Amino acid sequence: QEKVENKTPLVNESLKKFLNTKDGRLVASLVAEFLQFFNLDFTLAVFQPESSTLNGLEARENLARDLGIIEAKATKEGPLLLEVIRRCQQKKGVSNFG
Amino acid sequence: QEKVENKTPLVNESLKKFLNTKDGRLVASLVAEFLQFFNLDFTLAVFQPESSTLNGLEARENLARDLGIIEAKATKEGPLLLEVIRRCQQKKGVSNFG
Repeated sequence: QEKVENKTPLVNESLKKFLNTKDGRLVASLVAEFLQFFNLDFTLAVFQPESSTLNGLEARENLARDLGIIEAKATKEGPLLLEVIRRCQQKKGVSNFG
Repeated sequence: QEKVENKTPLVNESLKKFLNTKDGRLVASLVAEFLQFFNLDFTLAVFQPESSTLNGLEARENLARDLGIIEAKATKEGPLLLEVIRRCQQKKGVSNFG
């Protein structure tokens, strides 16, 4: 048998741990939705096995619901992450004076 | 010469347009930072050429500054997108009663 010490582990432990949290799963699902939205099919084809999320992440519909985003013509024109960023920035402006 | 009609264009026009906007660039940079954070090197190696961002996106330091995130021990333990999601959710709760 070969020695396996000092080899990079095949399982990405920090990502695995992250995906076991609610927010972590949400973040990874938003990343996958971004890749899907722009048809980055080659990237997705590598991302899914590398992150072990082949049959695991949430669809856009569910993500929008979890984030309290009601889809309209404007939100459908971009990936959900764009709407997330926009909302954060709007609220940042308000909360800075709160 | 070969006919080129009906072939998929090599340039992803919708992504290109998206990356030319401030928020779009921010979103794509956050996706790349997520991939870097978890050492998803194979995904990154495909993402960069597929999205034409080989020498284009913002580093974590600049992203944090643009988003008004002051890095601390807690934020450094995760990708910036996690902090973004957390802040959005906190504010969502507040703004719903505002």
